[in-house]
Amino acid sequence: MTHDETIVALATPAGAGAIAVIRLSGKDAITIASNLFVSISGKVLEKQKTHTVHLGHVKDGERVIDEVLATLFKNPNSYTGEDVVEFSCHGSNYIQQEIIQLCLRKGARMAQAGEFTLRAFLNGKMDLSQAEAVADLIASDSEASHQLAIQQMRGGFSSEIKKLREELLNFASLIELELDFAEEDVEFANRDEFQKLITRITQVLKGLIDSFATGNVLKNGIPVAIVGEPNVGKSTLLNALLNEERAIVSDIAGTTRDTIEDEIVIGGIGFRFIDTAGIRRTDDVIEGLGIKKTFEKMEQAQVVIYLFDAAEQKDHATEIEQVKNKYPQKPLVIIANKVDQLSEEAKKQFNVSLSTRLSDGQAVEGSHLLLLSAKTGEGVEELKQQLLEFINTGALRNNETIVTNTRHYDALLKALEEIQKVQEGLDSGLSGDLLAIDIRQALYYFGEITGEISNDELLGNIFANFCIGK
Amino acid sequence: MTHDETIVALATPAGAGAIAVIRLSGKDAITIASNLFVSISGKVLEKQKTHTVHLGHVKDGERVIDEVLATLFKNPNSYTGEDVVEFSCHGSNYIQQEIIQLCLRKGARMAQAGEFTLRAFLNGKMDLSQAEAVADLIASDSEASHQLAIQQMRGGFSSEIKKLREELLNFASLIELELDFAEEDVEFANRDEFQKLITRITQVLKGLIDSFATGNVLKNGIPVAIVGEPNVGKSTLLNALLNEERAIVSDIAGTTRDTIEDEIVIGGIGFRFIDTAGIRRTDDVIEGLGIKKTFEKMEQAQVVIYLFDAAEQKDHATEIEQVKNKYPQKPLVIIANKVDQLSEEAKKQFNVSLSTRLSDGQAVEGSHLLLLSAKTGEGVEELKQQLLEFINTGALRNNETIVTNTRHYDALLKALEEIQKVQEGLDSGLSGDLLAIDIRQALYYFGEITGEISNDELLGNIFANFCIGK
Repeated sequence: MTHDETIVALATPAGAGAIAVIRLSGKDAITIASNLFVSISGKVLEKQKTHTVHLGHVKDGERVIDEVLATLFKNPNSYTGEDVVEFSCHGSNYIQQEIIQLCLRKGARMAQAGEFTLRAFLNGKMDLSQAEAVADLIASDSEASHQLAIQQMRGGFSSEIKKLREELLNFASLIELELDFAEEDVEFANRDEFQKLITRITQVLKGLIDSFATGNVLKNGIPVAIVGEPNVGKSTLLNALLNEERAIVSDIAGTTRDTIEDEIVIGGIGFRFIDTAGIRRTDDVIEGLGIKKTFEKMEQAQVVIYLFDAAEQKDHATEIEQVKNKYPQKPLVIIANKVDQLSEEAKKQFNVSLSTRLSDGQAVEGSHLLLLSAKTGEGVEELKQQLLEFINTGALRNNETIVTNTRHYDALLKALEEIQKVQEGLDSGLSGDLLAIDIRQALYYFGEITGEISNDELLGNIFANFCIGK
Repeated sequence: MTHDETIVALATPAGAGAIAVIRLSGKDAITIASNLFVSISGKVLEKQKTHTVHLGHVKDGERVIDEVLATLFKNPNSYTGEDVVEFSCHGSNYIQQEIIQLCLRKGARMAQAGEFTLRAFLNGKMDLSQAEAVADLIASDSEASHQLAIQQMRGGFSSEIKKLREELLNFASLIELELDFAEEDVEFANRDEFQKLITRITQVLKGLIDSFATGNVLKNGIPVAIVGEPNVGKSTLLNALLNEERAIVSDIAGTTRDTIEDEIVIGGIGFRFIDTAGIRRTDDVIEGLGIKKTFEKMEQAQVVIYLFDAAEQKDHATEIEQVKNKYPQKPLVIIANKVDQLSEEAKKQFNVSLSTRLSDGQAVEGSHLLLLSAKTGEGVEELKQQLLEFINTGALRNNETIVTNTRHYDALLKALEEIQKVQEGLDSGLSGDLLAIDIRQALYYFGEITGEISNDELLGNIFANFCIGK
């Protein structure tokens, strides 16, 4: 794989559609395009300005493949920073294949996954964390994950890291300079200023590291375990949640409902509902097959919903206490479903009796009781509001920097470790040469995030997750 | 549905991909686009030249939806002939939906199937037969169907019809003019010239009508019935044909193999292989269940393949004669499969004995015997060549006008009928006023093809077959 070659790929989703876009990038992109494209007005593609569109035919010799629009982007003013030509053709599979084959015959090669974005990174059009955000952006399917990716793509995260890195680099240079004048015992780097910087860096790193917990769930969806026996209405509840959001999700291809895990977007946040077998009670003793599994799934969840059939006239307080005792920190929503089968009087009584039992058992703290009918929709809106309240979207709303990428999180943890060593060194009056080693190591981890420091293996891993054509 | 409104739709295939294109068309397209697009360079979209591309952000108020390229096409220099803006955005489902929703909120409405092309027709950017070719082009999945669609889209067919229609219209006017001077007994329309024109039109119409048989199979694939009992190797044969073409078809999404009907592209031509139960022989009498069905399928086919197991050491001459007697006109390929199980000597003998039996039975004419092994690939290439020889691709190669559309075929038949009435009128010295009626009727059918004559129902039927976004 060399970056001298000109690459080509389909940039739009596979399959037939009104139009498809085929993208050529590299030093020969315009020459190759000119070799197979004949403008209707007789204009020569090479001589046209950047960011202009030209109607013409893609021809294989005398054979017309299609009438297309060719868009010209001249380096460095393109996505990749190289010369780029995009053909917008009729979206038949046959035409897509023919134009790509023709580009290959004229000297281009097939682009690898993410290779356009890799070139954009290598040509300085974006840093590594911005490049990673491009893949996140394409994969994002909720408002929250989308917003996080857009923020990262626009450099919110890396500009902060870059600024700190520069300041730290500056101090590192000064400290290293001292080493050259070791015999003269001078201090170019003001230790007070340096201490202030290290304190600030520590704070920022801790903030970013803390944000990962939020970022990760916002990006991947919040796992919610639904604990409930068969026939208490789990499916109906998920459908009720899903139906109200149909306007948003219906047109999205690939939204398949899985009996094991349902992803539903509520208020712009993705929730992953994990079905569990429930906790069976035999002679008032909590036991039974599958309970271990139920607890494992609760372990993974950020929120637990305990769902039961209100018409059964059991209050389930024992099981609920069991859950609460096992996971005292996890938000718990207790849902009495099928309340449409109860009279208003029965509902009221039910509410009081369960609440009393629960508070008697000291299990009510941090848990929320909801009377709901998945069938009629009663209480569904309250459940949604309740679920959204568990999520700290404050950071998202305030446009704060949130870390969503495991690779960044790891690098930040390592950078913090090194910065803490520097801090210890400062506290113990460590000599400049030893201090410099720790600073350099911290700088290394900073650089890994934005890509100032990178290697082929790292890049290979990152871009392998992209789709071809991006 | 009014054509004053500005319409919006996703123009690229549904699903996530590197990029997606959203198309806005109508008098407010640029205003709506300006309302949600902020150029990075601060340029105002309205003031930019047609056929230029601009980098910027799609924003919903302060919220950034995506970084996009906006391409501007000013009327009449666009696909629809109206003002058009195309947003090329990151291809996530979420972003696609958000941008479309935003366009709707700013005053656009969702485009209906084919509405962009309908507008192109209504605005005189293309005639009706060219518009129909756009849908054919997108659906085409073989070189032949693609070439036919491209030819029609470029106006090869309609320009011929239009020229004839104009000449005929000219004569119609002259003849109608005579009616105004009826008392003076003048002839503005030279009857000899008119006779020549009618002869030419008749020839052209007959040629076009004849071409439909070829055009229809090239467009929809040539139906080939495979007659053969179970276990003679039908599946293996289809796989052998398919495998060799894998380089062409593999990347094409939606190419699914169906046990009933397989479409395989050979030499740029689509062939639809129809599996039949075969003809069973009981005590040398042709009979058995399913034979009626086999014959029905042969009826639909243009070519029949009789496939049998060479290792069985039966020559099948009786059954083959039966097929040949039933369909003397249909090309027949007799394939002795599994010849890899025979020795060279056995093969030779086999070949001679079957040929002798067949020629004794007078069934050999027009049929072709092939010794083949679907397993090793022996003879598969010969089969392909044989199949291609049955197809008259001469017209395709010579770039002749070929009719592929049933609607056009019907209109041509009706036009020919009217022209023949005109001919009869000329022969019998019919008066000008009656002649004019038949000419007008012929002109009507010509006009239906190219769309000079159209109505909402006709347009509705045609464009309903388009995808949304085209």
